[in-house]
Amino acid sequence: MIIDGKAIAEEVLVELAGEVKAITATTAHLRVGVRSRLAAVLVGDHAGSHKFLELKKKAAQKIRIDFRLYEFPADITTQKLRKEIVGIAKAQVNDGVMIELPLPSHINTQYVLNAIPPEKDVDVLSEKSQGAFFAGRSVVLPPAVEAVKIILEKHGIEPKGKNCAVFGYGLLVGKPVSHWLASQGATVSVINEFTLNPERYSQDADIVISGVGPVRGKDPLRALAASNGASKPLITVDMIKEGAVIIDFGKDVDFGIISKKAGLITPPLGGVGPIVIAAVLSNLVCLIKKAN
Amino acid sequence: MIIDGKAIAEEVLVELAGEVKAITATTAHLRVGVRSRLAAVLVGDHAGSHKFLELKKKAAQKIRIDFRLYEFPADITTQKLRKEIVGIAKAQVNDGVMIELPLPSHINTQYVLNAIPPEKDVDVLSEKSQGAFFAGRSVVLPPAVEAVKIILEKHGIEPKGKNCAVFGYGLLVGKPVSHWLASQGATVSVINEFTLNPERYSQDADIVISGVGPVRGKDPLRALAASNGASKPLITVDMIKEGAVIIDFGKDVDFGIISKKAGLITPPLGGVGPIVIAAVLSNLVCLIKKAN
Repeated sequence: MIIDGKAIAEEVLVELAGEVKAITATTAHLRVGVRSRLAAVLVGDHAGSHKFLELKKKAAQKIRIDFRLYEFPADITTQKLRKEIVGIAKAQVNDGVMIELPLPSHINTQYVLNAIPPEKDVDVLSEKSQGAFFAGRSVVLPPAVEAVKIILEKHGIEPKGKNCAVFGYGLLVGKPVSHWLASQGATVSVINEFTLNPERYSQDADIVISGVGPVRGKDPLRALAASNGASKPLITVDMIKEGAVIIDFGKDVDFGIISKKAGLITPPLGGVGPIVIAAVLSNLVCLIKKAN
Repeated sequence: MIIDGKAIAEEVLVELAGEVKAITATTAHLRVGVRSRLAAVLVGDHAGSHKFLELKKKAAQKIRIDFRLYEFPADITTQKLRKEIVGIAKAQVNDGVMIELPLPSHINTQYVLNAIPPEKDVDVLSEKSQGAFFAGRSVVLPPAVEAVKIILEKHGIEPKGKNCAVFGYGLLVGKPVSHWLASQGATVSVINEFTLNPERYSQDADIVISGVGPVRGKDPLRALAASNGASKPLITVDMIKEGAVIIDFGKDVDFGIISKKAGLITPPLGGVGPIVIAAVLSNLVCLIKKAN
């Protein structure tokens, strides 16, 4: 079965819209009737960023949350950017703050992310937020984790006791998702570009998560993909168990053939992407409720 | 080859003693000539704690660092304990603070651990310290991770590209070690009590880390051990590849037989334990150097 990410995201957003309405109507103190706002930070302009931001804006508007884009030039310094983000995060009108990644390579990304306080950190990426997440005490989950959770719950799948193969160990997908699956009692294998025999792990996996993605600086596993021949996807049909659940963040999967073998699979378009965006807004609403 | 943990720990301590001497002699401002101090917190009295603390004290004294034990009754409340630890951590005379785990079950352990500021957190267990570690920005590593790193470096073993099996996903061993191995480019499989076929992962592992340990409240994997028969160890010789490196934190391994098959193995006594203690002191010295 092909997972309809758009439909699932729509459901999440409809529910959130109700919550936002209730918050706007009933919230105590200062801000009754004032719309909440998500602040997004974009530095420079790399491929895809504007498209992603447009989708986030649309989703926010659907649930009557304002969206404000703060743009900075690609040559901004780390110090200057950090200072700007401190200001954006301090503004009471911004209920949540997110920084579109990746940042230009001269920027110290983690140092900049740390300028977002946990109570506005919708992407769960500051060190404080990551610490709370890894300690099992965060009120919100990293959006990729939340998306996996939504998909599994929707289909009644418990991670506990499942064999999981996670391709890639990046900040946004592989690292948080593998930790979360392990903390839920799953058996988790993290596979990277240096793994000699990825199929050994993936062929036995009930759940496959892929977060490798296109070549972008230090992204892992592309060496492997390249060695498979440029036109061949990273994850091929022989690597997958019949009936497995495949959640493909990085468009790493040979979707056409694998969709006939998998039990559940996200398509490259309208797959997990819209659910991740809905998860960002879900985090925002959760943080707003907690603050009020 | 059997790893001589005592000898490795001794080497680490000798080096640290030199560093401590240099710090005491040359440190600027207030504290020239004053010995540094490690503060340890013990709540109640469970089996083994006093022994562990005695070993930490001995190791500290070897490198001329003072050791102060703060003891509290088993029925102390979370709030009261947190307040006490805030005070201990604030005292300038305490350069590092550690809490002997586990705490009594009525205590909110993570909340209490969070009272230790990162600059004195020798065990890397507060949410802030964990966040820095998971974000790859901590100046010190969790002691179990540091112990694994010392052993691998000592024997010229690079984690990158190795297949690793980690048994257990606890706060002290499994969680931090599996994250660190993955961040070093290893292929990492996290195995727990719900894993149906642990041997599938361990039989192909170049490095096996075990952090399950004796039954203690929520410790994982003991169900599996019990199902193997009470007298049988969790990790048996058929589960191990010829020549593998075995680092056994939890005394989970059938040492007698496996030591003949493994390439490198820590014994249950004088194995990884003394190295973990040396790593705690190494962290303390590192944090003192950073603060000065």
